[in-house]
Amino acid sequence: MSDQPLYLQLRDQLLEHMTQGALQPGTRLPSERALAETFETTRVTLRQALAQLESEGAIYRSNRRGWFVSAPRLEYDPVKDISFTRYVADQGRAPRTEVVGIELTPAPAHVAQALRLGEVADVYLLRRKRYVDERLVFIERIWLNPIYLPNIDQQPVDALWKLLNEKYGISLNRKQITITPIALIGAIAEALDVNSGCPGLFITRLGQTATGDAIEYDEEYWLHDVLTIRVSTQSL
Amino acid sequence: MSDQPLYLQLRDQLLEHMTQGALQPGTRLPSERALAETFETTRVTLRQALAQLESEGAIYRSNRRGWFVSAPRLEYDPVKDISFTRYVADQGRAPRTEVVGIELTPAPAHVAQALRLGEVADVYLLRRKRYVDERLVFIERIWLNPIYLPNIDQQPVDALWKLLNEKYGISLNRKQITITPIALIGAIAEALDVNSGCPGLFITRLGQTATGDAIEYDEEYWLHDVLTIRVSTQSL
Repeated sequence: MSDQPLYLQLRDQLLEHMTQGALQPGTRLPSERALAETFETTRVTLRQALAQLESEGAIYRSNRRGWFVSAPRLEYDPVKDISFTRYVADQGRAPRTEVVGIELTPAPAHVAQALRLGEVADVYLLRRKRYVDERLVFIERIWLNPIYLPNIDQQPVDALWKLLNEKYGISLNRKQITITPIALIGAIAEALDVNSGCPGLFITRLGQTATGDAIEYDEEYWLHDVLTIRVSTQSL
Repeated sequence: MSDQPLYLQLRDQLLEHMTQGALQPGTRLPSERALAETFETTRVTLRQALAQLESEGAIYRSNRRGWFVSAPRLEYDPVKDISFTRYVADQGRAPRTEVVGIELTPAPAHVAQALRLGEVADVYLLRRKRYVDERLVFIERIWLNPIYLPNIDQQPVDALWKLLNEKYGISLNRKQITITPIALIGAIAEALDVNSGCPGLFITRLGQTATGDAIEYDEEYWLHDVLTIRVSTQSL
């Protein structure tokens, strides 16, 4: 291990220090000067090590206020695809959903195609914000097929899958999920309160019934340091 | 659709132009001045639209040489997890693997843990570069368990799963895969020839036999605009 660059050795030491010291998420790290003294290193090497930890999502910067310990990444298994609310709670964290609004609007071409609507169809557009431990982690646009979900704009749409099930008798048994790494820019970066160009994830989810009715199409923009996707496979 | 911001409308037009014009990947776009004239827009709006397309990975910039059309993203299904060489070829693209080197080296702690080696064990470290259509798309470190793979440094390690199968009689029937969005920085960014801080994907893969012997642990650093992960699920 001693042939690793200095900053990577320091990264490991810092990470061990954070883990062993059981620093809670949100804890502020000591100043860079204090850290450099504690670990007997230069500011240059220290900053490289901090940048490395930031790139991995282990710490984050807050304007003028220093470095903070990140919460552990949530694990998400697209194969299981249980609801956000449930897998966040299962991991001992606090989920929250904020409904921004819902409206009937002309379907953009790619949404009309995904939901197999006609060319000039209307669709419900539901906008929501999702929080973990009161940190905004992703924003989403959910396109809802009005053929199967009449007057859904009159319903409580914060727990959507539950509503579909209990009010409309619909289960989304088939899902097609795409996960695409992107840069967060423009209005999306602004809404997520990060610098333009920051890494993010774009997740789409087409929810269909067992017989193939296309019910909802979801577009999610995630901060990059929130999730790890974990899949186990087994072949014979 | 007319209530979308101008730059997003222009983004859609540009994308349609690229698709309909059947612009081959690698084609250079006309100059920004020419594009602004063609689409009757301002340079400001044009640049916002180009930045949007870049963030999605549809176009990329080459220093002082302008904007180029990206190749379509490869689709990768971690549930199937067929070999890189095969899924790239299946999608009509040309894969290539370059072996950088292989050496016996002390196992870092996280590797010793993943491969269930003792505290002071040695492990083979194989470094490779992977190309699609002669573009470098990811670099990898593969940690190989010497207990099951003696003298693998004497073997051709460009087609690894084939070698494991044919030379050592080992099939990796169980895999644990993690996919984590990160920022590419430092030596990794340099090796991939991108700016530090650029979005990327970090993929790890623990390959085990059906009986749970831990054979290899793979760490891959990907450019952000190469892959879309696609998973289909079905429940009853």
